[in-house]
Amino acid sequence: MSRAVIAGRMLDAPAPGKTDLEEAALLIDQSGTIIERAGRGTPQFDMLLRSPDVRKLDARSLLIPGLVDLHIHAPQWPQIGTALDLPLERWLGEYTFPLEARYEDIAFAEAVYDDLVPALLAQGTTTALYFTTIHEDASLALARSCLKYGQRGFVGLVAMDNAALCPETYRHASPEAAIDATRRFIEAVRKLPGNETGLVQPVITPRFIPACSDALLRGLGELARETGVRVQTHASESDWEHECVRTRFGCTDVEALDTFGLLRQHTVLAHAGFTNADDRERIRKRQSAIAHCPISNAFFAGAVLPVRHLIDEGTACGLGTDISGGYSPSIFENARQAVIAARMLTSGVNPDTAPGKRGSPGLEIDFAEAFWLATRGGAEALGVPTGLLRPGMKLDALELRMDIGMSFPEGPDCAANAVQKIVCHAGLHSVTRVWVDGKIVDVHGRGKQP
Amino acid sequence: MSRAVIAGRMLDAPAPGKTDLEEAALLIDQSGTIIERAGRGTPQFDMLLRSPDVRKLDARSLLIPGLVDLHIHAPQWPQIGTALDLPLERWLGEYTFPLEARYEDIAFAEAVYDDLVPALLAQGTTTALYFTTIHEDASLALARSCLKYGQRGFVGLVAMDNAALCPETYRHASPEAAIDATRRFIEAVRKLPGNETGLVQPVITPRFIPACSDALLRGLGELARETGVRVQTHASESDWEHECVRTRFGCTDVEALDTFGLLRQHTVLAHAGFTNADDRERIRKRQSAIAHCPISNAFFAGAVLPVRHLIDEGTACGLGTDISGGYSPSIFENARQAVIAARMLTSGVNPDTAPGKRGSPGLEIDFAEAFWLATRGGAEALGVPTGLLRPGMKLDALELRMDIGMSFPEGPDCAANAVQKIVCHAGLHSVTRVWVDGKIVDVHGRGKQP
Ligand SMILES: [Zn+2]
Ligand SMILES: [Zn+2]
Repeated sequence: MSRAVIAGRMLDAPAPGKTDLEEAALLIDQSGTIIERAGRGTPQFDMLLRSPDVRKLDARSLLIPGLVDLHIHAPQWPQIGTALDLPLERWLGEYTFPLEARYEDIAFAEAVYDDLVPALLAQGTTTALYFTTIHEDASLALARSCLKYGQRGFVGLVAMDNAALCPETYRHASPEAAIDATRRFIEAVRKLPGNETGLVQPVITPRFIPACSDALLRGLGELARETGVRVQTHASESDWEHECVRTRFGCTDVEALDTFGLLRQHTVLAHAGFTNADDRERIRKRQSAIAHCPISNAFFAGAVLPVRHLIDEGTACGLGTDISGGYSPSIFENARQAVIAARMLTSGVNPDTAPGKRGSPGLEIDFAEAFWLATRGGAEALGVPTGLLRPGMKLDALELRMDIGMSFPEGPDCAANAVQKIVCHAGLHSVTRVWVDGKIVDVHGRGKQP
Repeated sequence: MSRAVIAGRMLDAPAPGKTDLEEAALLIDQSGTIIERAGRGTPQFDMLLRSPDVRKLDARSLLIPGLVDLHIHAPQWPQIGTALDLPLERWLGEYTFPLEARYEDIAFAEAVYDDLVPALLAQGTTTALYFTTIHEDASLALARSCLKYGQRGFVGLVAMDNAALCPETYRHASPEAAIDATRRFIEAVRKLPGNETGLVQPVITPRFIPACSDALLRGLGELARETGVRVQTHASESDWEHECVRTRFGCTDVEALDTFGLLRQHTVLAHAGFTNADDRERIRKRQSAIAHCPISNAFFAGAVLPVRHLIDEGTACGLGTDISGGYSPSIFENARQAVIAARMLTSGVNPDTAPGKRGSPGLEIDFAEAFWLATRGGAEALGVPTGLLRPGMKLDALELRMDIGMSFPEGPDCAANAVQKIVCHAGLHSVTRVWVDGKIVDVHGRGKQP
């Protein structure tokens, strides 16, 4: 790939609530890094536009950073939008664990993952942090699908050994078996042909505390320190889970994870709705992050994560689809749900409660904050140089067609209006082109316009 | 138009929570009425399939009833997805009333309405119950757009005369002026060229009690009795509005509307989150209905309408987008939000509240109930013979392509799974063909695949 120029209107969010909309040109080098940005009206802009490799966006289109999905269960793709009416224990026992157990069949895994990865790219998800299953071969198949379609993938072989919670046919036989498997998986991903630039990374993935023995949690913490590999897990998702950990360890999920050495830089904790201020201080101190999954939380968490506090405190946070606990593969749809959930937390929900006692005032987030969570927030959580259309960043980006309800607003609050329209209305139909690591990826045939 | 046959998999919901998925053939007569339905395996099915006019759906597609939008402000289309961060009074005063005042300009109105109607049809909205503005010519332009593009439209000239609430430049000068205008508008819609079958109907539309004088409310009630024309208004939307009416009349919105003769068969009350059990009993007695607008309510209502009670009691109810208080033109997206809002009402939202005190158990609705609200529920609320793919109904229907996340599930719970996948995932990208009143309408160029 040679040096390339992209020119047109571009919008990104350097900080929560701060958006920037400008007509500009980006110069991209051979490694996919943005090495220069020039705004319209500068001599450099005019020079870049004369480049032979310039790609100009049309007047109805807009460039934004690619979306980051901080929490997704790849093997649950076949059951997306299924059985959400069930309580969590039946959903896991009757649907989810039996489905995940099927990934012993590598052909099945390859078919699903080769369908999932381009489908997510078509939705605008340029980076995904995946849970897979306990199966090493199948999990490597997901890593290969990411490389094949060009998605920035963080792939976590699931570790789970607790016989009391996990079915006999779908768990690791011992802590050692799970730790050895994780170690082998880390090596295998790093050595995958085509992964020389490290586009796909392994992740240490204890499913959640209740599914893991103490020995497994401890061993994975040691492996993380030894290898420097990122960690992900679920934490403080629901009353049941939160109480389960408190009964076992006499502390919160976050405290327990820290004890086991699992709370590290770029550790991503899914959900975390029942964390308290001390937990979040600990998360900041360890430079860990939270994956907020607002659609999934409506079904399985039983409360709303107060994202307002996270943003104000500077606790790292991004968005996750939590497929298939969440039904939507779209980070845009999760971003609008994050705004709605925060509104409902603020106002309260029960009309029979007196207005003054119904809600928790001041916990709204706005659309620009949701956009930041979907893009730069997720990238910062993972520690990848993406999420902004600025020099030094890798170019992970989307061309959006501003169609129904998305015409360009004029006037001084132009960027604020544009970001609100994107969060409210963007989806599969509006993503017309996708770049990852500076390369255009092929999302043709995934429900796209030609 | 001659007799036509449509054959393929079809799904509808005869009652809340009851769905039916079958491969069948429909025979449609010249008036657009379904006169026969035959399931696969019957001799009649085979005979209909041999018809020269048969249209067969492909294996990845599905026929469902058209969607009904029970509450939408047509003039607010240009500002969809704008300024939702503002409180209601600033949103009205700075954005909404100034925008609505612009519809004095008939050319502006025609341009907006000619954009809106096909955009809604492309989203699958075959029937819409519209608020317009106080401008008769502009409101007739909306009626003409409905006829031009073939949408079943209920169009309400807004009546508002309260100087304390409405801007001087945007209100009726007196109760008589508003009543006379409404009377003229009813006549004009009924006489529109091309409206001989009554596809477009006028609606008596007091904006909401606080915007109307007693004399206006009384006069519109008399006009409704005299003409038999349907009524729509907002009711019990928020704490402020609810208290405003209680202070003025010493009773609820529903009681006051009933006193003025406005609570009639097929009166549609938007929002109604703060109605109580007595209000809802009165609504049932008068055969009126509620338009549930879950996305809008997250921004402006401050509580969740308990739809569970409405369904269990048999209070008529459907869904509304409430553009632009709601940001989405999609009834599918509002249907999924209805499920989520009911879940959040049930579980509660504040993680700091003890689990037993957080929510209001038992108020969930399921995906099949949301599908019914979006289709047959809305049709019953308005009293139109649509919303089912059954003999005697007019054919208002959508062909959906079951793409991403929407593959056909197999097994005994097939219909339940299909309806859940539709409510979770359907949108602009999946609506491939639209019929209203038996005719295929043209949604080409509205963000559709070719
Ligand atoms: Zn999860
Ligand atoms: Zn309204």
